Amino acid sequence: MKSIFYTRFFILLPWILIVIIVIDIDTKRLSVRNTASFYLSRLGNVHGSNATSLPVIYAITPTYSRAVQKAELTRLANTFRQVPQFHWIVVEDSNSHTELVSRFLARSGLRYTHLNVFTPRRFKRTGMPRATEQRNLALGWLRGHRSVKDKGVVFFADDDNTYSLALFEEMRSTRRVSVWPVGLVGGRRYERPLVEEGKVVGWYTGWKAERPFAIDMAGFAVNLQVILSNPRALFKRRGAKPGMQESDFLKQITKVEDLEPKAKNCTQVLVWHTRTEKVNLGNEPKRQQDSVYIEV
Amino acid sequence: MKSIFYTRFFILLPWILIVIIVIDIDTKRLSVRNTASFYLSRLGNVHGSNATSLPVIYAITPTYSRAVQKAELTRLANTFRQVPQFHWIVVEDSNSHTELVSRFLARSGLRYTHLNVFTPRRFKRTGMPRATEQRNLALGWLRGHRSVKDKGVVFFADDDNTYSLALFEEMRSTRRVSVWPVGLVGGRRYERPLVEEGKVVGWYTGWKAERPFAIDMAGFAVNLQVILSNPRALFKRRGAKPGMQESDFLKQITKVEDLEPKAKNCTQVLVWHTRTEKVNLGNEPKRQQDSVYIEV
Repeated sequence: MKSIFYTRFFILLPWILIVIIVIDIDTKRLSVRNTASFYLSRLGNVHGSNATSLPVIYAITPTYSRAVQKAELTRLANTFRQVPQFHWIVVEDSNSHTELVSRFLARSGLRYTHLNVFTPRRFKRTGMPRATEQRNLALGWLRGHRSVKDKGVVFFADDDNTYSLALFEEMRSTRRVSVWPVGLVGGRRYERPLVEEGKVVGWYTGWKAERPFAIDMAGFAVNLQVILSNPRALFKRRGAKPGMQESDFLKQITKVEDLEPKAKNCTQVLVWHTRTEKVNLGNEPKRQQDSVYIEV
Repeated sequence: MKSIFYTRFFILLPWILIVIIVIDIDTKRLSVRNTASFYLSRLGNVHGSNATSLPVIYAITPTYSRAVQKAELTRLANTFRQVPQFHWIVVEDSNSHTELVSRFLARSGLRYTHLNVFTPRRFKRTGMPRATEQRNLALGWLRGHRSVKDKGVVFFADDDNTYSLALFEEMRSTRRVSVWPVGLVGGRRYERPLVEEGKVVGWYTGWKAERPFAIDMAGFAVNLQVILSNPRALFKRRGAKPGMQESDFLKQITKVEDLEPKAKNCTQVLVWHTRTEKVNLGNEPKRQQDSVYIEV
């Protein structure tokens, strides 16, 4: 009798142990996974479990060679690195990829596309719109490399502005064309679309209030599918008037009443039109240079 | 005979299973942990396993109320958020904590200390050193709240400069006082300490070359223990000459020959003395304001 009891005990005990261990593994694995995704989501990391289903933000940044260029790109990349599902389209105003920008992008840790197109000298005059060729090349790239299957939002991110991380989460849900306030622009603390009952009904601006879309380049985003389904929508070079680039472009793809207000019905400033001072290089040595070459 | 075989089989089988499962758990757990720490380390995250043993970087940032203040703090925080073991000491030039900076810091996701001290109006003149009171208050805070047990590095991070992430990893190993080049300063593309055989032997500068330490505020870091063991080392207000703040401070705690060159023997620019343009608010409405108040 005793022997049968022991036999049964030794047969049952390990099976009970197995059941306990298996249950234990499942809960532990789950908790490890939860802890990891908690930190990853706090960091706004692209590797988070839901990140890949988010629409990609395509930020189009025209840039040109100057003393502060690498500094500007550095702080821009420091911001963009924290935006999940982000694709940076950098378009140089040059005849070829410069070494500085190529090296910088390769080390940035960001997903990027590096393009270049030189703006003819006759267009580089005061009062002429800037970066037209660069923005249009980026739009062309999107039309050539993305299709109806791709979920995305397109945003024009000049290299001297200041962006809060919250801005990108606002624009990510853009269905057609979304708008929001921009700080430090048009001679005012901010400009913004005026919103009534969820619709844009006018513009708070101190400059050229008669513009159809009285908005800065940093004040709107466009769903990728709108860019693809309007293949001829481009920034105008011929006949373009100062300050009319945004309006000329937006009227090709939307109407004021269809705009989607973001940032709490356009009552929050999440992007600033900062400008960096031109650098004084008056003490740069005329002849005797430094003993080493240093990229700045 | 057959019955004994089955009995033994059913006794042994579960034990074998247990051994297999336990081995399996250990390897799986390890790999989950490795995967997580790989992503976390790529992100330079403070939760990484080795992060807590790193010296803390205390960045002292004097700041004052102006149109671009929130924009500047926003891009600064976007950079600092990616630096592991980072503690931001923000010192406002004001009689009390402003709401804007308090709210901003609380939402920044950074470890921070918020201080304030008002600079008397008589010190706010051209040619007078700026932010002296704010930097000294931060040094006082460190002396009052940190001890010989704390590992740290102190750095003066003005709110308009541009910082690469690599800079912080360079300064983290500072044993006493470390130095490196600064971009876009002194009327040149960069200024830098000249290094021979691992020692600073002079300065590449286009401005006041006779300064004992011809270096910008963004060009050096000091080990926390040096700050604590020199309790009277402060920035000078009385008798201070323009451009001499750094030299006046550094000569209280170190000698040129003891400086530790960073950034590949001072041949890399990892910080830029960028300056943001003052904002034109000429179109701000004189009477009729916007219908809502918006913080910019």
